[in-house]
Amino acid sequence: MSRNILILPGDGIGPEITREARRVLEACRDEGLDITLDEAPVGGAAIDASGVPLASETLEKAKAADAILLGAVGGPKWDAMEDIGKRPEKGLLALRKELGLFGNLRPALLYPQLVEASSLKPEVVSGLDIMIVRELTGGIYFGQPRGRDTREDGTRHGYNTYVYDEHEIRRIGRVAFEMAQKRNGRLCSVDKANVLEVTMLWRDIMNELAPEYPDVELSHMYVDNAAMQLVRAPKQFDVIVTGNMFGDILSDAAAMLTGSIGMLPSASLNESGQGMYEPCHGSAPDIAGQGLANPLATILSVAMMLRYSLNAPGHAERIEQAVGEVLDRNLRTADIAYPGTEQVTTEAMGEAVVAAF
Amino acid sequence: MSRNILILPGDGIGPEITREARRVLEACRDEGLDITLDEAPVGGAAIDASGVPLASETLEKAKAADAILLGAVGGPKWDAMEDIGKRPEKGLLALRKELGLFGNLRPALLYPQLVEASSLKPEVVSGLDIMIVRELTGGIYFGQPRGRDTREDGTRHGYNTYVYDEHEIRRIGRVAFEMAQKRNGRLCSVDKANVLEVTMLWRDIMNELAPEYPDVELSHMYVDNAAMQLVRAPKQFDVIVTGNMFGDILSDAAAMLTGSIGMLPSASLNESGQGMYEPCHGSAPDIAGQGLANPLATILSVAMMLRYSLNAPGHAERIEQAVGEVLDRNLRTADIAYPGTEQVTTEAMGEAVVAAF
Ligand SMILES: CC(C)[C@H](C(=O)O)[C@@H](O)C(=O)O
Ligand SMILES: CC(C)[C@H](C(=O)O)[C@@H](O)C(=O)O
Repeated sequence: MSRNILILPGDGIGPEITREARRVLEACRDEGLDITLDEAPVGGAAIDASGVPLASETLEKAKAADAILLGAVGGPKWDAMEDIGKRPEKGLLALRKELGLFGNLRPALLYPQLVEASSLKPEVVSGLDIMIVRELTGGIYFGQPRGRDTREDGTRHGYNTYVYDEHEIRRIGRVAFEMAQKRNGRLCSVDKANVLEVTMLWRDIMNELAPEYPDVELSHMYVDNAAMQLVRAPKQFDVIVTGNMFGDILSDAAAMLTGSIGMLPSASLNESGQGMYEPCHGSAPDIAGQGLANPLATILSVAMMLRYSLNAPGHAERIEQAVGEVLDRNLRTADIAYPGTEQVTTEAMGEAVVAAF
Repeated sequence: MSRNILILPGDGIGPEITREARRVLEACRDEGLDITLDEAPVGGAAIDASGVPLASETLEKAKAADAILLGAVGGPKWDAMEDIGKRPEKGLLALRKELGLFGNLRPALLYPQLVEASSLKPEVVSGLDIMIVRELTGGIYFGQPRGRDTREDGTRHGYNTYVYDEHEIRRIGRVAFEMAQKRNGRLCSVDKANVLEVTMLWRDIMNELAPEYPDVELSHMYVDNAAMQLVRAPKQFDVIVTGNMFGDILSDAAAMLTGSIGMLPSASLNESGQGMYEPCHGSAPDIAGQGLANPLATILSVAMMLRYSLNAPGHAERIEQAVGEVLDRNLRTADIAYPGTEQVTTEAMGEAVVAAF
């Protein structure tokens, strides 16, 4: 039973980082992992090719795949698009929604070899290991009604709706509680329940779930305080669970605490364990095509894929070990290089991981 | 023409920090500033006294005041209130809305004496001086419809509405452009225009205003990237303008970059220059009544008040100098004390500022 992996390179540095990740997948195949690989365009690349950010053919392939590896989407070339439905990001959002990928896992992990890269003091971040569980198919990203209108008097206004159903909250809550069980047993739910009714419901549902997980210690934090605490003392967190919008913001802040967002993978899972895997960072159009991009986040996304969707933890571990080894050998792409390390290209980094595999 | 200042101590550490700020106001009065001082309860204290977080009598006093000094509101005692309209925070939100205090200025300034207090590396934050301009009376905080409902099938859901009119965006935009003119001429508008229609309008309006301020360089940033950039390289920012919710989150993160949120004042202004002034930090119920709170943010809020609402820049400057002087003398409240400094109580800190005034 060969597993079917769809690679969606996307825009900006997407093609070059997924190219290296593909090499790693091929190395796994050479070592007994039974997979087939396919590729398709998404985002701006798809707009350029077919006029839409997610062609129905690509969506069908994605639905049929056992797992998806995504590079990144978006760039200034398509930023002027007034119609939100025709922007590269829409391709990503449609994939998440159509595949039901509600459970977004975003680790913020500091590699001991890279503690220097952080803008925070070493004692504040060394050993940092947070898992952010972000709800990915609901909230204000998808709420209706939404739009822009002009009133009769000519005044323009814009509106979006932040809405959650209890079952949407409960299912992401379960993912987070289970994650906390597998980690250090602490779960912090982030909301703005002192102002927003939708997040009061969020808090209630988390509290209702808590008795089912007596081994997990649940706490609540307002989103403004969470943003502050991430800066002040990030090691206080184990697992954080939050909605789509707050998760977008906090996961990027948390990732940047490590100083090496080029290292951080992510997974987006649906109820049947099918998943899309992608680096936490964006498409970085400013450095695209120059061999400056760090492929390790995408390569580590492959490791997450093997663990969560393909049940191949052995291969996952080998990839992670190979990454650790190239870091130990002081190989660094531009984003994480500093005096005393050896700066290498995107491609050389990919090759080094494959060689260490 | 005596000016009328209303002090709203609020909850937690609110009473003790406003007490010290009041001393400073009295010192100004002794030195020729023609003011009268009044006090009223707000937030949890008002709930305890009268059952509502903002009594109509207090609101009337606030409307009649030339300026308002607020301590902080909220605490676990009132957190269980299911009805958002009866929570302490509602008193604060109602004041903002009823007085039309749409322009929230939140400086994130690092005092050179306190660079050690930051969790970031000194080279990343020394000299940090950001002004965050947050829209305060619109957006998702006040959008309708909002609430919690149970559907016919028994499913609960919650919802809030993120909405902006073009005139709301334009007037906060003007505040921000003018602020950038007075500072270093750079304005970064933060939105999520790749996903939310309401913030596409936000971006459009900022772009429409730009030609009126040719001396200001306008840029745009997505909120997730802004959260990241604040952690990575905060000194890239001069003025940031954003909506109510994003401003809540980013201003707290920015404040915490300094490591001394106990030092940061804020102003909330309406169209006629009337203002409410308060520390950036919250009510910190865990340390209330122990003399541990830092009164300097509230004292510096008085300085902002004198500058923006009472047209007394001379007195404002004297307060700021007095604060600088006590820091130079190494006096520190618990939150900013470190080995080699002299830890003093809330009250002693207030007295020291008055003595240096
Ligand atoms: C590109 C954008 C639509 C997306 C999001 O906001 O979810 C990205 O920022 C992310 O976090 O994956
Ligand atoms: C207390 C709360 C309602 C308030 C807000 O969210 O605006 C506070 O966090 C602030 O930033 O002033």
